[in-house]
Amino acid sequence: MTSDRLSDQLGFILEIDKLKTVLRQTILTDSSRRENSAEHSWHITLMALLLREYASGDVDVFRVMKMLLIHDLVEIDCDDTFCYDEQGMIGKYEREQAAARRLFSLLPADQGQEFLALWEEFEVRTTDDSRYANAMDRLQPLLHNYATQGGAWRSHGVTLDQVLARNRHIGDGAPDLWEYAARMLQEAVARGYLPDPERTSA
Amino acid sequence: MTSDRLSDQLGFILEIDKLKTVLRQTILTDSSRRENSAEHSWHITLMALLLREYASGDVDVFRVMKMLLIHDLVEIDCDDTFCYDEQGMIGKYEREQAAARRLFSLLPADQGQEFLALWEEFEVRTTDDSRYANAMDRLQPLLHNYATQGGAWRSHGVTLDQVLARNRHIGDGAPDLWEYAARMLQEAVARGYLPDPERTSA
Repeated sequence: MTSDRLSDQLGFILEIDKLKTVLRQTILTDSSRRENSAEHSWHITLMALLLREYASGDVDVFRVMKMLLIHDLVEIDCDDTFCYDEQGMIGKYEREQAAARRLFSLLPADQGQEFLALWEEFEVRTTDDSRYANAMDRLQPLLHNYATQGGAWRSHGVTLDQVLARNRHIGDGAPDLWEYAARMLQEAVARGYLPDPERTSA
Repeated sequence: MTSDRLSDQLGFILEIDKLKTVLRQTILTDSSRRENSAEHSWHITLMALLLREYASGDVDVFRVMKMLLIHDLVEIDCDDTFCYDEQGMIGKYEREQAAARRLFSLLPADQGQEFLALWEEFEVRTTDDSRYANAMDRLQPLLHNYATQGGAWRSHGVTLDQVLARNRHIGDGAPDLWEYAARMLQEAVARGYLPDPERTSA
């Protein structure tokens, strides 16, 4: 007989398959289609492992990887909110918190509580682990948008000041990576991938 | 100035984006489309974290997760081989080993060597970590095929004896999960999702 515990775990494992159908605004580097949140989660979890030497403070990369594997699961209920969509950002935390509670309560209590705590830690960004995890989550779309000559920036008319404002906190988790990204953004402006309103109006 | 080390790491991170375009035979649980190898890797890495209590022996789940994040990267060069495709399995290890060498040599030497060793460990299945990792990789398609009333089994005419032969080693990494899966396969036969040649000819 299958224990209730294993049934709950397998039920959750089938439920989260839905994350593969949640589409983000980021496009793949071959520009063939939009990225989904499950493959995005895979990509940044592996990035966290590879780039740990750039993390600020005392980072436990195993915890960071757990955070990144689960951080987007709430989108199964809430869909992905484009980070430059100011209207969509209103009430986002409350909606996602309700989703986190529903999803993680499918698991045995010990595992559900651990995941809920990790999800909240990721959201509030007050620990070294969560700041580094957030840096991965923000850096990856910048790499994709640059690699696709503007990608989602172009299709949504995003400008340099918006990108800087939304992504500056990469520097809290990984200062050298933010320094790299900031130079890449200047290059993106120079190449015409990303408009700089200051420069345009000068 | 960006160091060569960071350039190599970021080059690898962009290269592996290609895994998102490698399609597997497994279909998503909503039957909407085939699964790709990047989202599959995300799914089984999270499964390894959730199901560690069923692992045989002394398993380091952090190492297992690293293995699962990278185990399919070779498909960027070799494409996915359906595990019931006997012809396709010939020479698979040698082709994939060449791919592993190419891909992991894009990384700084210390990281490339670690990943190559993890990839080889996964392939040869002689450690507790790799046996548990392989159990996750094999269990997930069974769950999907059952959830989709036969899924890839039906579309490829796969039979119970083939499924048992290919997946029996789940029991080496996670005996209770293989016991669960074996019961699920009997149920799949009873429901008509998976033909049992023995029963049909009886």
